[in-house]
Amino acid sequence: MKARVTITLKPGVLDPQGKAIEGALADLGFADVASARQGKVIDLELSATDEAAARAEVGQMCEALLANTVVERYDIAILA
Amino acid sequence: MKARVTITLKPGVLDPQGKAIEGALADLGFADVASARQGKVIDLELSATDEAAARAEVGQMCEALLANTVVERYDIAILA
Repeated sequence: MKARVTITLKPGVLDPQGKAIEGALADLGFADVASARQGKVIDLELSATDEAAARAEVGQMCEALLANTVVERYDIAILA
Repeated sequence: MKARVTITLKPGVLDPQGKAIEGALADLGFADVASARQGKVIDLELSATDEAAARAEVGQMCEALLANTVVERYDIAILA
Protein backbone atom coordinates (compact mmCIF):
# COMPACT_ATOMS: atom_id res chain seq x y z
CA MET A 1 0.00 0.00 0.00
CA LYS A 2 1.34 3.42 -0.96
CA ALA A 3 0.83 6.53 1.11
CA ARG A 4 1.74 10.11 0.31
CA VAL A 5 2.31 12.58 3.14
CA THR A 6 2.26 16.25 2.17
CA ILE A 7 3.78 18.55 4.77
CA THR A 8 3.29 22.29 4.47
CA LEU A 9 4.01 25.23 6.73
CA LYS A 10 1.02 26.54 8.64
CA PRO A 11 -0.34 29.88 7.44
CA GLY A 12 1.56 32.76 8.99
CA VAL A 13 4.79 30.83 9.45
CA LEU A 14 7.65 32.59 7.68
CA ASP A 15 8.87 30.66 4.63
CA PRO A 16 12.28 31.86 3.44
CA GLN A 17 12.51 29.11 0.78
CA GLY A 18 9.18 30.21 -0.65
CA LYS A 19 10.32 33.84 -0.67
CA ALA A 20 13.49 32.84 -2.52
CA ILE A 21 11.38 31.04 -5.14
CA GLU A 22 9.12 34.11 -5.49
CA GLY A 23 12.15 36.32 -6.04
CA ALA A 24 13.78 33.97 -8.52
CA LEU A 25 10.55 33.57 -10.53
CA ALA A 26 10.13 37.36 -10.64
CA ASP A 27 13.75 37.71 -11.83
CA LEU A 28 13.00 35.23 -14.62
CA GLY A 29 10.04 37.35 -15.78
CA PHE A 30 7.15 35.42 -14.25
CA ALA A 31 5.36 38.54 -13.04
CA ASP A 32 2.18 36.59 -12.47
CA VAL A 33 3.22 34.95 -9.19
CA ALA A 34 1.65 36.55 -6.12
CA SER A 35 3.17 34.12 -3.63
CA ALA A 36 5.06 30.85 -3.38
CA ARG A 37 5.34 28.50 -0.40
CA GLN A 38 7.44 25.38 -0.24
CA GLY A 39 6.65 22.17 1.57
CA LYS A 40 7.70 18.58 1.28
CA VAL A 41 6.18 15.33 0.22
CA ILE A 42 7.09 11.87 1.50
CA ASP A 43 6.04 8.76 -0.41
CA LEU A 44 5.87 5.65 1.73
CA GLU A 45 5.53 2.03 0.68
CA LEU A 46 3.77 0.11 3.45
CA SER A 47 3.21 -3.59 3.91
CA ALA A 48 -0.17 -2.91 5.63
CA THR A 49 -3.14 -3.90 3.51
CA ASP A 50 -5.93 -2.21 5.50
CA GLU A 51 -6.46 1.43 4.50
CA ALA A 52 -7.70 2.64 7.89
CA ALA A 53 -4.83 0.94 9.70
CA ALA A 54 -2.31 2.37 7.22
CA ARG A 55 -3.73 5.86 7.65
CA ALA A 56 -3.55 5.61 11.44
CA GLU A 57 0.02 4.34 11.32
CA VAL A 58 1.16 7.09 8.96
CA GLY A 59 -0.49 9.61 11.29
CA GLN A 60 1.65 8.28 14.13
CA MET A 61 4.76 8.56 11.93
CA CYS A 62 3.90 12.20 11.18
CA GLU A 63 3.44 13.05 14.84
CA ALA A 64 6.59 11.19 15.90
CA LEU A 65 9.03 12.11 13.15
CA LEU A 66 7.90 13.42 9.80
CA ALA A 67 6.24 16.72 10.65
CA ASN A 68 7.01 19.43 13.17
CA THR A 69 3.42 20.03 14.23
CA VAL A 70 4.30 23.31 15.92
CA VAL A 71 4.81 25.00 12.57
CA GLU A 72 3.74 22.42 10.00
CA ARG A 73 0.56 20.67 9.01
CA TYR A 74 0.34 17.33 7.22
CA ASP A 75 -2.10 15.62 4.88
CA ILE A 76 -2.15 11.87 4.35
CA ALA A 77 -3.33 10.36 1.08
CA ILE A 78 -3.56 6.60 0.66
CA LEU A 79 -2.85 5.93 -2.99
CA ALA A 80 -3.37 2.22 -3.54
CA MET B 1 -5.72 30.86 -8.98
CA LYS B 2 -3.75 28.41 -6.87
CA ALA B 3 -1.40 25.83 -8.33
CA ARG B 4 0.44 23.03 -6.57
CA VAL B 5 3.64 21.64 -8.08
CA THR B 6 4.78 18.28 -6.72
CA ILE B 7 8.39 17.47 -7.54
CA THR B 8 9.68 13.95 -6.97
CA LEU B 9 12.86 12.13 -7.86
CA LYS B 10 12.63 9.89 -10.91
CA PRO B 11 12.62 6.16 -10.16
CA GLY B 12 16.14 4.84 -9.80
CA VAL B 13 17.63 8.13 -8.63
CA LEU B 14 19.34 7.67 -5.28
CA ASP B 15 17.43 9.40 -2.46
CA PRO B 16 19.56 9.78 0.68
CA GLN B 17 16.86 11.81 2.46
CA GLY B 18 14.36 9.04 1.86
CA LYS B 19 16.84 6.44 3.12
CA ALA B 20 17.38 8.52 6.28
CA ILE B 21 13.61 8.63 6.84
CA GLU B 22 13.37 4.86 6.34
CA GLY B 23 16.11 4.29 8.90
CA ALA B 24 14.63 6.67 11.43
CA LEU B 25 11.15 5.15 11.10
CA ALA B 26 12.60 1.67 11.57
CA ASP B 27 14.47 2.87 14.67
CA LEU B 28 11.17 4.20 16.05
CA GLY B 29 9.57 0.79 15.61
CA PHE B 30 7.61 1.33 12.40
CA ALA B 31 8.64 -2.01 10.91
CA ASP B 32 5.92 -1.73 8.28
CA VAL B 33 7.73 0.72 6.00
CA ALA B 34 9.23 -0.92 2.91
CA SER B 35 10.52 2.32 1.40
CA ALA B 36 10.36 6.08 1.76
CA ARG B 37 11.15 8.74 -0.84
CA GLN B 38 11.14 12.45 -0.29
CA GLY B 39 10.16 15.17 -2.72
CA LYS B 40 8.97 18.73 -2.48
CA VAL B 41 5.81 20.63 -3.07
CA ILE B 42 5.51 24.26 -4.13
CA ASP B 43 2.22 26.12 -3.73
CA LEU B 44 1.87 29.07 -6.06
CA GLU B 45 -0.67 31.86 -6.01
CA LEU B 46 -1.14 33.16 -9.56
CA SER B 47 -3.02 36.16 -10.87
CA ALA B 48 -3.93 34.26 -14.07
CA THR B 49 -7.61 33.35 -14.28
CA ASP B 50 -7.49 30.89 -17.20
CA GLU B 51 -6.69 27.33 -16.11
CA ALA B 52 -4.97 26.27 -19.32
CA ALA B 53 -2.82 29.40 -19.37
CA ALA B 54 -1.92 28.95 -15.71
CA ARG B 55 -0.95 25.33 -16.30
CA ALA B 56 1.25 26.28 -19.26
CA GLU B 57 2.94 29.05 -17.30
CA VAL B 58 3.63 26.81 -14.30
CA GLY B 59 5.09 24.24 -16.68
CA GLN B 60 7.51 26.89 -17.95
CA MET B 61 8.43 27.73 -14.34
CA CYS B 62 9.16 24.07 -13.64
CA GLU B 63 11.38 23.73 -16.68
CA ALA B 64 13.20 26.99 -16.01
CA LEU B 65 13.65 26.90 -12.24
CA LEU B 66 11.59 24.67 -10.00
CA ALA B 67 12.55 21.18 -11.11
CA ASN B 68 15.81 19.63 -12.21
CA THR B 69 14.35 17.60 -15.05
CA VAL B 70 17.49 15.45 -15.34
CA VAL B 71 16.67 13.69 -12.08
CA GLU B 72 13.23 14.98 -11.10
CA ARG B 73 9.71 14.80 -12.45
CA TYR B 74 6.95 17.30 -11.70
CA ASP B 75 3.18 17.22 -11.52
CA ILE B 76 1.05 20.34 -11.76
CA ALA B 77 -2.34 20.54 -10.08
CA ILE B 78 -4.55 23.60 -10.51
CA LEU B 79 -6.52 23.89 -7.28
CA ALA B 80 -8.98 26.75 -7.77
